[in-house]
Amino acid sequence: MDLTLQEAAALLLARRHITILSHRKPDGDTLGGAFALCWALEGLGKAARVLCADGYPDRYCFLYPDGYTPPVFAPDEEDFVVAVDTASLELLGTLGDRYKDKIDLIIDHHGSNTRFAPNTIVDTAAGATAELIFQLIPLLGAGYTPAIAGALYTGVATDTGCFRYTNTTAQTLRIAASLIDAGADSILINRLMFETKSKGRLAVEAMAMGSVEYDYDGRCAIIYITEAMLAATGVSEYDIEGISAMPRQIEGVEAGVTIREQGGECRISLRTCSMVDASAVCQQLGGGGHPRAAGCTVKGDVLTARQAMLKALKPFLEGEAQ
Amino acid sequence: MDLTLQEAAALLLARRHITILSHRKPDGDTLGGAFALCWALEGLGKAARVLCADGYPDRYCFLYPDGYTPPVFAPDEEDFVVAVDTASLELLGTLGDRYKDKIDLIIDHHGSNTRFAPNTIVDTAAGATAELIFQLIPLLGAGYTPAIAGALYTGVATDTGCFRYTNTTAQTLRIAASLIDAGADSILINRLMFETKSKGRLAVEAMAMGSVEYDYDGRCAIIYITEAMLAATGVSEYDIEGISAMPRQIEGVEAGVTIREQGGECRISLRTCSMVDASAVCQQLGGGGHPRAAGCTVKGDVLTARQAMLKALKPFLEGEAQ
Repeated sequence: MDLTLQEAAALLLARRHITILSHRKPDGDTLGGAFALCWALEGLGKAARVLCADGYPDRYCFLYPDGYTPPVFAPDEEDFVVAVDTASLELLGTLGDRYKDKIDLIIDHHGSNTRFAPNTIVDTAAGATAELIFQLIPLLGAGYTPAIAGALYTGVATDTGCFRYTNTTAQTLRIAASLIDAGADSILINRLMFETKSKGRLAVEAMAMGSVEYDYDGRCAIIYITEAMLAATGVSEYDIEGISAMPRQIEGVEAGVTIREQGGECRISLRTCSMVDASAVCQQLGGGGHPRAAGCTVKGDVLTARQAMLKALKPFLEGEAQ
Repeated sequence: MDLTLQEAAALLLARRHITILSHRKPDGDTLGGAFALCWALEGLGKAARVLCADGYPDRYCFLYPDGYTPPVFAPDEEDFVVAVDTASLELLGTLGDRYKDKIDLIIDHHGSNTRFAPNTIVDTAAGATAELIFQLIPLLGAGYTPAIAGALYTGVATDTGCFRYTNTTAQTLRIAASLIDAGADSILINRLMFETKSKGRLAVEAMAMGSVEYDYDGRCAIIYITEAMLAATGVSEYDIEGISAMPRQIEGVEAGVTIREQGGECRISLRTCSMVDASAVCQQLGGGGHPRAAGCTVKGDVLTARQAMLKALKPFLEGEAQ
């Protein structure tokens, strides 16, 4: 059932031990939104914790106190489970198995959300799930502490490419302004999230950009992140986050494709302009996402993935050209 | 004399033929602020025009109607001249000679403004000069048309690195939100200003990033833009703009150096963090600039330039380490 934020607040207020789930390969929105909700619930005297199948990456260590570990709940204590920014059960990773049929509420902004819980808030107009948590917090009767404001700012800023992507609305900017007023350290967060690259990231970015191939008269650009590149540069999963935004930035490109080789299969990320429905393209290959940013996984090597994606794109890029 | 925006509005309202000056090598703030003011004054029935020593670059063609040229004023018609976002007379280029002692008002946000006119508004708290024009427009009795809102959004967004730089405040974000509400096409403007790279730019960026060398235990990063790279990618001067910001973004780097080979000499650009005075370093090699961004020119090839810069940096990077 789709709930209002007011109804979701009532559900949360009725429980005591609340687990908040972030999706695997966590980003700033799933963690920022989850920690903001966690601190708000703790401030109301509840026991709350954030769980993520992949833990909390170092990159986001400013979201929680030094040495923070989530509280342990006794087996029968946990009485409410919320999944934040998570479009499907699979995206919870190993936590998906553990919490299958035990999730009470989903708060998300992905149109592709599979509604894998009895109660859902899925608002695709929100630039980030953190925007929804921002609205939820006063309905819980909680306030915006600097820690909550910083966590929400992280979610809003990272999911909108620091207010650059098309999901940024006037409301997004007003929320960010309120969060700065409430004590979000936007200068620190922007520096950590947008102005700092590891040496490995720089190296892998240079290789990925150097690998670019153009198709459909330059309207499709494909870049590759191979296992050899990762081995040569020694980068982690987090060092390659966001690289998939790059091919779409090239002048004249309507479909920007990033093919990431990973253990016998390839993860494909697609970013598009308004002419190409990225979600529809990726659905042909068993994936999904947003109209302008979607993904899928293809078995085989990078050439197989390339051929599959070019074929899936064909009706969009050739159809339009005719 | 430092004026209030209300006083500046009164001065403008008393005149009929108003020339607005943008600085040479125009950016989004000087042009966006100037065109916004121009359209607002025209809407009030005045004759207004924007002049820039370097014309209006194609990159900003969305700021004015197709084929727009500034109106010609008869010699004795022009009765008011405003300089927008211009810190000194020199920055007006050839218009500085023509308008020396004839500028009535400066509207700017640079702390280094030399106050080269009798009336000045210099507000360093503003993230962009466009924020000041945003406040001025209702004081003139004008409204925000979509064209005015788009021009102001361009100024605010470009001068703050799309709300990423440290000059972004809560007020900046609220102004941007109001401008979107007033019809600024932020999606188009963000795409043109921040999301578009030429194929050549991508290629030269990949090569420059691939050329990175680290010195002083990773605290200095040097990238190269050689004549061979430019020839291989066929890029223009405009395509390499801003690449010099890249080495400083690397984690742990305190001095980011870009060496650009050009006809027997090398142009060196230095960006630093707070530990290194970029201007002092470049002064040793006959250059200069700001504390965090400076430049110089060294005769010889890229290796000569590299050695010269490493030597100039030595007292800053070794001294600090001891």
